[in-house]
Amino acid sequence: MSGLLIAFEGGDGAGKSTQAAILEDTLRQQGLRTLLLREPGSTTVGDYLREYLVAKQPISSLAELLLFEASRAELVRERIVPATEEGTVVICDRFAGSTVAYQGYGRGIDLETIDTLNDIATQGRYPDLTLLIDVDPLVGLGRINSRLLQLALPIGDAPDRFEDEELAFHDRVRRGFLRQAEANAKSWRQIEGNRSVDEVSSAIWKEVCSLLTDHRIQSENA
Amino acid sequence: MSGLLIAFEGGDGAGKSTQAAILEDTLRQQGLRTLLLREPGSTTVGDYLREYLVAKQPISSLAELLLFEASRAELVRERIVPATEEGTVVICDRFAGSTVAYQGYGRGIDLETIDTLNDIATQGRYPDLTLLIDVDPLVGLGRINSRLLQLALPIGDAPDRFEDEELAFHDRVRRGFLRQAEANAKSWRQIEGNRSVDEVSSAIWKEVCSLLTDHRIQSENA
Repeated sequence: MSGLLIAFEGGDGAGKSTQAAILEDTLRQQGLRTLLLREPGSTTVGDYLREYLVAKQPISSLAELLLFEASRAELVRERIVPATEEGTVVICDRFAGSTVAYQGYGRGIDLETIDTLNDIATQGRYPDLTLLIDVDPLVGLGRINSRLLQLALPIGDAPDRFEDEELAFHDRVRRGFLRQAEANAKSWRQIEGNRSVDEVSSAIWKEVCSLLTDHRIQSENA
Repeated sequence: MSGLLIAFEGGDGAGKSTQAAILEDTLRQQGLRTLLLREPGSTTVGDYLREYLVAKQPISSLAELLLFEASRAELVRERIVPATEEGTVVICDRFAGSTVAYQGYGRGIDLETIDTLNDIATQGRYPDLTLLIDVDPLVGLGRINSRLLQLALPIGDAPDRFEDEELAFHDRVRRGFLRQAEANAKSWRQIEGNRSVDEVSSAIWKEVCSLLTDHRIQSENA
């Protein structure tokens, strides 16, 4: 039995990490083997690169793009392929679609270069289902700012190199995600993210059930 | 006046770093502005990646390749292009040719992928002159081992992730360098490296003088 790769995509503050954790929990309750990963990271080299990117060290857009691709290449080869080959449902918090949206639409690197690099890094192993949680950047960034307030951190002191980009950047990123969802209607699903956590997770579960049925994956309980 | 990019290539222990330093010194004595760089490294992110690679942390061949390209992308954009634009002669200890030789011929990644990545990372800024210092791997690795003996380190405890690869790997790398020199006869020069430091540096200086004349670059003393 071959496993599946499900990716969560969306802007900052869309709720990807929360929803990825809920989905993993639900799948486990159904008796399925799961693995939750995030990008960049989830490998030794990926975590090392994440540290550099999070620390907002100096880097050009092109080198930044290549670091994300290096992290992805390692993740696909060392974790995603072995896990799916043994029947695990792999959930990935961000994947190749984020690179198109952030480095392509956001930073302005040409999309052909990004597609080429994504093809090389993934070795063609794209997600079976990509769940795009769409929220207006004002909503997503608002959520991040209220998280910072809870942590008593000054607003604008965001912990991520993208979160403190200007609003126009996040608008371009959002458009980048939406265009990909339109262009890849077979494997992408757009989820309205400006709702309660429960409403969003129900919408996601509906899509995942449909994927499991298509792939004839039965839970052990079924 | 536009500057020049001169790259040193060759196997481990060929004498690249020694010869790059001698060439820089000679060019400076001629009144030319110079900049000596090395790969991977010579930028904030490049040094960070070098640290990971030197520490022999786990990494797949493809992710390793992408780290070298990220370091190169940053180096070209942040250091090589600005320096050559202001007339500096940039000397680089390893460049794109090493990736073809080590990751292509050595590790077995297909050469088309490597060429694509080199084109993206360099943005087409290839060296005006590449000096391939060719030595038999037995000679090069012998030099490294005698350096280790001088440092009272055990042989086999090489400080580089490539130096402790098997001899067949280094033979493939050498062939990779020689094939590139043949295929790019316009800008590559093969230098017999199994000679004294002075003999090698004289041969290199002859090639560099010819390049400077072709580019009508005159020293301030001339």
